[in-house]
Amino acid sequence: MNGAESLVATLVDRGVDICFANPGTSEMHFLAALENPRMRSVLCLFEGVATGAADGWYRMRDTPASTLLHLGPGLANGLANIHNAKRASSGMVNIIGEHSTSHLKYDPPLTSDIEGLARPMSHWVRRADSAGAIAWDAAKAVDAASAHPGRIATLILPGDASWREAGAPAVPPRPQSPRSAPDVARVEHVARVLRSGEPTLIILGNKATRGAALLRAGKVAAATGARLGSQFFTARIERGAGRVPLERIPYAVAPAQAFLKDFKHIVTVETGEPVAFFSYPDKPSLLKREGTLVHRLVEADEDSALAFEMLLDALGAGATAPLLQPRVATPVPSGALDPVSIAHALAAALPEDCIVVDESLTTGRETMGYTMGAAPHDLINNLGGSIGYATPVATGAALACPDRRVFCMVGDGSAMYTIQSLWTQARENLNVTTIIFANHSYAILKAEYSNMGAGTPGERALSMIDIDRPRIDWRAMAKSMGVRSVAVDTAEAFHAAMVESAREAGPCLIEVRL
Amino acid sequence: MNGAESLVATLVDRGVDICFANPGTSEMHFLAALENPRMRSVLCLFEGVATGAADGWYRMRDTPASTLLHLGPGLANGLANIHNAKRASSGMVNIIGEHSTSHLKYDPPLTSDIEGLARPMSHWVRRADSAGAIAWDAAKAVDAASAHPGRIATLILPGDASWREAGAPAVPPRPQSPRSAPDVARVEHVARVLRSGEPTLIILGNKATRGAALLRAGKVAAATGARLGSQFFTARIERGAGRVPLERIPYAVAPAQAFLKDFKHIVTVETGEPVAFFSYPDKPSLLKREGTLVHRLVEADEDSALAFEMLLDALGAGATAPLLQPRVATPVPSGALDPVSIAHALAAALPEDCIVVDESLTTGRETMGYTMGAAPHDLINNLGGSIGYATPVATGAALACPDRRVFCMVGDGSAMYTIQSLWTQARENLNVTTIIFANHSYAILKAEYSNMGAGTPGERALSMIDIDRPRIDWRAMAKSMGVRSVAVDTAEAFHAAMVESAREAGPCLIEVRL
Repeated sequence: MNGAESLVATLVDRGVDICFANPGTSEMHFLAALENPRMRSVLCLFEGVATGAADGWYRMRDTPASTLLHLGPGLANGLANIHNAKRASSGMVNIIGEHSTSHLKYDPPLTSDIEGLARPMSHWVRRADSAGAIAWDAAKAVDAASAHPGRIATLILPGDASWREAGAPAVPPRPQSPRSAPDVARVEHVARVLRSGEPTLIILGNKATRGAALLRAGKVAAATGARLGSQFFTARIERGAGRVPLERIPYAVAPAQAFLKDFKHIVTVETGEPVAFFSYPDKPSLLKREGTLVHRLVEADEDSALAFEMLLDALGAGATAPLLQPRVATPVPSGALDPVSIAHALAAALPEDCIVVDESLTTGRETMGYTMGAAPHDLINNLGGSIGYATPVATGAALACPDRRVFCMVGDGSAMYTIQSLWTQARENLNVTTIIFANHSYAILKAEYSNMGAGTPGERALSMIDIDRPRIDWRAMAKSMGVRSVAVDTAEAFHAAMVESAREAGPCLIEVRL
Repeated sequence: MNGAESLVATLVDRGVDICFANPGTSEMHFLAALENPRMRSVLCLFEGVATGAADGWYRMRDTPASTLLHLGPGLANGLANIHNAKRASSGMVNIIGEHSTSHLKYDPPLTSDIEGLARPMSHWVRRADSAGAIAWDAAKAVDAASAHPGRIATLILPGDASWREAGAPAVPPRPQSPRSAPDVARVEHVARVLRSGEPTLIILGNKATRGAALLRAGKVAAATGARLGSQFFTARIERGAGRVPLERIPYAVAPAQAFLKDFKHIVTVETGEPVAFFSYPDKPSLLKREGTLVHRLVEADEDSALAFEMLLDALGAGATAPLLQPRVATPVPSGALDPVSIAHALAAALPEDCIVVDESLTTGRETMGYTMGAAPHDLINNLGGSIGYATPVATGAALACPDRRVFCMVGDGSAMYTIQSLWTQARENLNVTTIIFANHSYAILKAEYSNMGAGTPGERALSMIDIDRPRIDWRAMAKSMGVRSVAVDTAEAFHAAMVESAREAGPCLIEVRL
């Protein structure tokens, strides 16, 4: 067994059984090791697709995927989506091919400071020193990535560590379950706040927006009158009819302030207090009213389900029925496409148990509320703010959940960043419906231009915001990578296209002509 | 004048008058400042296009372009082509938007360690501390980028430094001409080596492969019998009929060793001794024969033209006629497409004074020699080894030289990395002929798999190398971004398509079906 084989065997033994890969010469032994039938390899034509897909996998599975990237520049191409994954607390194991140790001193062309590139976006970085130690290193990488919250682990794999004899893999014992209970005193403090009856918003983040934690939060809300909210962006929310509804704190500073101004208390669960996404010349960074008190109920590494159980005990409210979202049957809309009719079409079309990946920015930003009463689904957002996350994340989510359809809503500007995702979706015949909101513009920037106090964009500034010369032909783009497509320009056609897309296995692209 | 206006004014005053941009919210004031009519802004739909285009601009102009990138992830997306530019000694000024200083402490979503990301690929990194100091910082950035060899300068621009009042720009004086003369003793030493008559290879790199330096090198070769070579990859070579011909050191280790084995001496000019691109289990890193002596004539920061003048003086050979490449009229080939017929078609089709950007990897790798006697042209290679360099570099080169046609030869695997370049080419109506060698494979990896001693790829390994499921429809891809296209499957059709592409202004894509 050589080092690469030892590495792949250790990854799968440790539960990492998929690798999103874009290999190069230095990773040929790793490629040979991928013949291991327990590891699934998925080829991506650009590294940002690989890292985003690993993020999508983690969002749906709660276990890390691996990526295989080609030296420093290959890692660099994947960093933006690693940033997004890091901000979403997704675990990921990145394997970065590297020159052999003996070759590095000659500074060949592909040499770069891989550790330096990895560190800003990774929690854990290590260089495999030898083939014999590689199993140990790989196990530690998986353990780091598998912690709660999930972490980015980056393992640098020199050629000689890959091809030399490794012997039998030696690995450390698996760590204990990493989630700890919240402090009892903190829980009792929050119980006192809630008993006060003063207006309180409980903001749920990361894994608190799903499963037992979410259900128990619904009981707390029902028992105390506290309202439940989420940040504008959350890693994954179980949402729709029958789920505990969360109110979304608006994106823009003024509406967010208006939403928050009546709360005397904010209780945070696996998240922090609301902060503006960007800074503006005359707007604050913190969004709460002055005087609002912030109480941290659950820290990022703690167990929200347990915390809410403790809180319900402290409140004596364990038997309360949770607040649940009723089903809202939305009639199929017709006529012009606008944010409201688009949201209505979505609400009417989303099938039960689908996955929605949202990077619609301008188009979907303020109207997603209309889908609260749709059939139950998972909603995935971008927490890192680097565009080009949705199509790769949808790719990984579809691989993680082959029986569920993924609806990937993406603006045309964002879609162009990592459009190579379509090819992997076609190759793997993934159930992804990519919805391109084609407004031929980085439309959000037009609003932000004036939000920033930069006035009205002149001709040259506008030419950096509009992407309408030429207009991208999205149907041709889909065809180029083997994805069937349809273009729609009415709400009813949009609805029909979504329903139709789910009837047949495999990817589909809907160009929504705005 | 605010900080952003001061920055843009300083850039253009200092000679940087083009900006390849992909802006976001935090760069709105910079966008407003781009209304300055002295600065040309070019929108790119992905940051790797922006940084690669800046590289292409420098290769043809020898002066830096600027880029505008959106915080850490935007920089990250551009890093691979910054790496390639750095390895090619291209100068570049990257402006990286950043949150305001007051906002950073809240760790909003797009926050990352921008300095940490920039440093591995930059020679010079600075954060603008204030609007008032920004002109000084910008001038220093331009000076750093404009040094010889060219350098990567990265200036981080916090929002508040951008929008606050800056006052009149204060800048340092321009530095003196940065190229120094080589050491006289070194020149005399090399003259002695050449006079010995022992077999000598002079390897020219960076700016020594053009203009007066190249011509004088041709005189040295004519006078002494030394041979002139280049590394396999060079930033830019003035090449073809009437130019001093350079022998290309082969890429693969064994042919490179065979080429070098008879030389007793290697003289280096703005480059180092030949090193293998990758490390292989049983192959050396250094390619020269044991016992070959290496003499550095011109260090990277020195003036090659002056060095060769000094050397000609020392040899008393200033009046020698240089070795020049005769015109080789290549008949238009016909029949099947293979590396030889492709090279013949190129040789027959390349118009005088065109620019060839080569990222053809497998297809063009060993047969470019057939174009040595073509009409005079410039040849640009990738020195950094990160694929996805050619289509952006061609974009920048076409902007730098609007009167010259650029032929961009690129493998299908490489082209998919930064295919968004086509859109900018259409938008700016650039004279770029993109030639896609569609072999539906990372074909070079098949050879490298066995070179690495990994044996014959199995089914799973092959599925990470072949990109034939689905086959990319290149004509649809071109159409999606507004670029006219043609597909060819014979040598004569390939030749005709190249000639035809140059008849009309604007971009064109030729799919070469292999």
